[in-house]
Amino acid sequence: MEAARTNSSSTPKGRGVNFSAPRSFFVKFRSKCKETFFSDDPFKPISQEPNGLLKTKKLLEYFVPVFEWLPKYNLQKLRYDLLAGITITSLAVPQGISYAKLASVPPIIGLYSSFVPPFVYAVFGSSNNLAVGTVAACSLLLAETIGEKMSKEDPELYLHLIFTATFITGVFQFALGFLRLGILVDFLSHSTITGFMGGTAVIILLQQLKGLLGLEHFTHKTDVVSVIHSVVTNRVELKWQSALAGVCFLIFLQTTRYIKTKKPKLFWVSAMGPMVVVLVGCLVAYLVHGSEHGIKTVGPLKKGLNPPSIQFLNFDAKYLPSVIKAGMVTGLIALAEGIAIGRSFAVMKNEQTDGNKEMVAFGLMNIVGSFTSCYLTTGPFSKTAVNYNAGTRTPMSNVVMGICMMLVLLFLAPIFSYTPLVGLSAIIMSAMLGLIDYEEMYHLFKVDKFDFIVCMTAFFGVSFLSMDYGLMMSVAVSILRALLYVARPSTCKLGRIPNSVMFRDIEQYPATEEMLGYVILQLGSPVFFANSTYIRERILRWIRDEPEAVEFLLLDLSGVSSIDMTGMETLLEVRRILGSKGVKMVVINPRFEVLEKMILAHFVEKIGKEYVFLSIDDAVQACRFNLATTTKPDQ
Amino acid sequence: MEAARTNSSSTPKGRGVNFSAPRSFFVKFRSKCKETFFSDDPFKPISQEPNGLLKTKKLLEYFVPVFEWLPKYNLQKLRYDLLAGITITSLAVPQGISYAKLASVPPIIGLYSSFVPPFVYAVFGSSNNLAVGTVAACSLLLAETIGEKMSKEDPELYLHLIFTATFITGVFQFALGFLRLGILVDFLSHSTITGFMGGTAVIILLQQLKGLLGLEHFTHKTDVVSVIHSVVTNRVELKWQSALAGVCFLIFLQTTRYIKTKKPKLFWVSAMGPMVVVLVGCLVAYLVHGSEHGIKTVGPLKKGLNPPSIQFLNFDAKYLPSVIKAGMVTGLIALAEGIAIGRSFAVMKNEQTDGNKEMVAFGLMNIVGSFTSCYLTTGPFSKTAVNYNAGTRTPMSNVVMGICMMLVLLFLAPIFSYTPLVGLSAIIMSAMLGLIDYEEMYHLFKVDKFDFIVCMTAFFGVSFLSMDYGLMMSVAVSILRALLYVARPSTCKLGRIPNSVMFRDIEQYPATEEMLGYVILQLGSPVFFANSTYIRERILRWIRDEPEAVEFLLLDLSGVSSIDMTGMETLLEVRRILGSKGVKMVVINPRFEVLEKMILAHFVEKIGKEYVFLSIDDAVQACRFNLATTTKPDQ
Repeated sequence: MEAARTNSSSTPKGRGVNFSAPRSFFVKFRSKCKETFFSDDPFKPISQEPNGLLKTKKLLEYFVPVFEWLPKYNLQKLRYDLLAGITITSLAVPQGISYAKLASVPPIIGLYSSFVPPFVYAVFGSSNNLAVGTVAACSLLLAETIGEKMSKEDPELYLHLIFTATFITGVFQFALGFLRLGILVDFLSHSTITGFMGGTAVIILLQQLKGLLGLEHFTHKTDVVSVIHSVVTNRVELKWQSALAGVCFLIFLQTTRYIKTKKPKLFWVSAMGPMVVVLVGCLVAYLVHGSEHGIKTVGPLKKGLNPPSIQFLNFDAKYLPSVIKAGMVTGLIALAEGIAIGRSFAVMKNEQTDGNKEMVAFGLMNIVGSFTSCYLTTGPFSKTAVNYNAGTRTPMSNVVMGICMMLVLLFLAPIFSYTPLVGLSAIIMSAMLGLIDYEEMYHLFKVDKFDFIVCMTAFFGVSFLSMDYGLMMSVAVSILRALLYVARPSTCKLGRIPNSVMFRDIEQYPATEEMLGYVILQLGSPVFFANSTYIRERILRWIRDEPEAVEFLLLDLSGVSSIDMTGMETLLEVRRILGSKGVKMVVINPRFEVLEKMILAHFVEKIGKEYVFLSIDDAVQACRFNLATTTKPDQ
Repeated sequence: MEAARTNSSSTPKGRGVNFSAPRSFFVKFRSKCKETFFSDDPFKPISQEPNGLLKTKKLLEYFVPVFEWLPKYNLQKLRYDLLAGITITSLAVPQGISYAKLASVPPIIGLYSSFVPPFVYAVFGSSNNLAVGTVAACSLLLAETIGEKMSKEDPELYLHLIFTATFITGVFQFALGFLRLGILVDFLSHSTITGFMGGTAVIILLQQLKGLLGLEHFTHKTDVVSVIHSVVTNRVELKWQSALAGVCFLIFLQTTRYIKTKKPKLFWVSAMGPMVVVLVGCLVAYLVHGSEHGIKTVGPLKKGLNPPSIQFLNFDAKYLPSVIKAGMVTGLIALAEGIAIGRSFAVMKNEQTDGNKEMVAFGLMNIVGSFTSCYLTTGPFSKTAVNYNAGTRTPMSNVVMGICMMLVLLFLAPIFSYTPLVGLSAIIMSAMLGLIDYEEMYHLFKVDKFDFIVCMTAFFGVSFLSMDYGLMMSVAVSILRALLYVARPSTCKLGRIPNSVMFRDIEQYPATEEMLGYVILQLGSPVFFANSTYIRERILRWIRDEPEAVEFLLLDLSGVSSIDMTGMETLLEVRRILGSKGVKMVVINPRFEVLEKMILAHFVEKIGKEYVFLSIDDAVQACRFNLATTTKPDQ
């Protein structure tokens, strides 16, 4: 930011750098904490209320969103929510059963999981579009993490550990939201999630080969190599009836999806697809006595609502580490997925969701779920998309789904016991095919190679190693990128844009003019320990590369939003080194926080206030007229 | 950077944003790699040589600095180097023996370590001030890391493992330098090193209580609690003769140090101090038959030069993990210390050192050392300071020290066998007292609380847990800081400085004027996955907090040196959300790299070129006259 200079060469009044005393530590600390944890300033509307009673009401509305939307609810909205709720129920039943299979828990648990959690979310959730349900990736990850520590011979114990993991997920999610640590979820970048979803889709697709081909024996591992090896080894077990039925179902489902992409208004065709597959499958299996022809079915499903499961929570030290790991990792992924999805749909409607509130809602949903025979739930993409397309207006659609599920559990559950496994496999496969986002990956490749690497790390890590390793590796690469960024902040040399007092990157704007004897550098941000050596070398190299003798080095700090002790010492060191070569260093427009620290550390004192300027142009003028003759002694 | 606007409201010719096609991936990649690994552009002077022979000569001089300084060497310089070399030898003998004790290796190894490595450094090192020798912190850390995996019952094996660790240190350091990974050392911040050195000094001081008090039994642990407990438990073994002698020595040494700080010219008093203690100690111990009075001595020291030790390198898989860990951790610390110290002294003389070259030199020094019965060497602070004060001119002083050490080893070694352990303890304690940098810690506390936390983490981590944990914790906190920085880049609202076209932070410059209907924000850097949610919330909050209706949001990107896909999507999302509220978003001065990505990702296309400006003033003018009437449809 340069000044329009109209008068003399000295800095005009009221235009100098503001050297007033730094703010106190507590003022700065409070402001930092606020930026870090309360960047959206959620309590402002509440504190603005004049009246104590109104304040309490607002506070209640803030923490329990149902109080905000329910009073404004009307029949008009109910009509939409009713339709949406019924539509997502038709998806909830087949998905519930399928994903329960992925998690190796009894199918009925999947149905239970679509009954209690939606009610909890409807009370505490802040998204109008999100539909609650189980998700494939987390289901498989739970099975993988808990399953590896114990034999699945004891399904009772395994189920109890799943409930415990869900409880831990809930507590963890609630704590993150309550402590406003949404920042953790921020580190799961879009690229990581794209890659992770894609990789997960691949391994889940391969897992379905068991059901699709009707194989008896199969590996317990999830990586591509083991699964393909297992399929090849057990190829003699292939049952053509099963494979044929599976392929038919899959083609049917993909056709319904294709119709949806062509005519978005016919979204219900694809939403109903899985239910049709299940019902047709049940009918066929029942009529032809499928089990005699090698077509396996889900098996007995008892009527009745969720039994309590709080007494089953198992904190045995033997399994606790893997249970905690499973709970926390799946919790984080579920949050990232649920929040991202909730947000994407909210944006389309110009609504707002609150990440921290969502975490609390997800947390409560899973805590209550773990007490009522449910396993991990979040906001799955497919269900939420259907909910959105069906025109949902409020979280009431989740209530509708909950009520429908109750009816299913009370009266219709036994019907679904005839569901052929091959139908479930086809449903899962069809869902997974939609999760491999080739286009996004190609887009990443074209725009940002590093984002692409992050994405591919997750993709191949998940498909060839395991889900948690893939995810961790991808996050590690992202963090490495963040560190590399701060270790090598890009700096550039500025030149004057002709007939102006603007200074811009000479590489970006080749028409800019350089001034003889001046080197003007714009430093990247931040300047601190991890990049101080680099910045020193880079500045010295720029001076060295000048063909002519340099008299002034102008450092534009307007882009530097943070500096630490090492950074300041480096700048002083540069000044000393250059001073001995007759080059004077001038500092331009240090920002608030930076200038405060510079004053505290006596940096300004050491270089002299007359060497700090508000704009490059001020500095250039001053160099030309004043500083050229005076010399500040080295301290 | 703002324009001095002299004419109309439209952007004048040659002043617009440069939307030319992005550079190709390979151009960008090459430039990134160069910035990351070759920021000092070391080969430029070489490639500038016209002649092939001269090129080779320059290249040789670059890789083997001795070729650079030796041809210019003269008697004048030799006089200084001779004096410096002899002075540091007087320090090398007592320090060598003392630190060998800390590393639990035979004292003679400490003397060997000051003979071969100085020659290697003199050939490859690039610092004129550095004096080669062993250091206390790494000696203790080696003993701690390797000692914990094996009983010290087998001193042969232990010694072989120490050689192996030194070899690994050497290879690791050489590789870091060769691969130009100096960036790793950058992550050991000044604050970490201050805290680490302080904490190490505390635990080494406490370790010396054994020698000082003449105790027989002592703990093998290093943390404060265990050591104090051990001293209290074994207090009955205290020998007053030993304690008295120790305190006398310590007072003498501290007095010599005090003299040095008062009269820097008398540096040799403090440099000679340890040698005086050793010689007086030897004499007294010899005369009074100290061992009969409970004063233990170093024990037999054989005459003769370093025997080869290459045949002792032990890569047994049983010990390899801890040996590699010890080698790499001590290697990194030794590098950080040596390079930082070499650089600090070089700066005082306005000389330059090359971090990557130093790494190669240290690496070769330790590889050769491990073949010739030496253990880990680097550039210790005390020796280097003495070398500098004695007026060293070139690495020749190390050669002089090496020759002196050779004479000591050949003829005088047996004398030092009478050195009383209490004298060595006093020497170490005196050295350690100088390493606890209270003033620096207080300075950190005052200027930067986060730097202070990093420092204290290292300090207390080292003193109460262990050296490697303390170091790792401190680095983790530093990295957390770096991540927090990128997760919450500080953004600010700008206002116009009266009578100018400069826009500055309204908080920093309260005199600035805000414009009705405009919100001008300066974003911190970078804008990417880890902070995109934050930036979105923060921008929306700023708009929400405006008392009046907002018509334009001006985003000043001049400080944003990097953006990724998630960041760009966030900006588009902000634009969509605001667009629905009738707020238009304008982007100002995207930097080279950012603009390239924006073009590639069709960002510019989506928001429209007419919404991208070179300066805030241009944007404000355009908003006032052109954009107020037109509306770009949402894509």
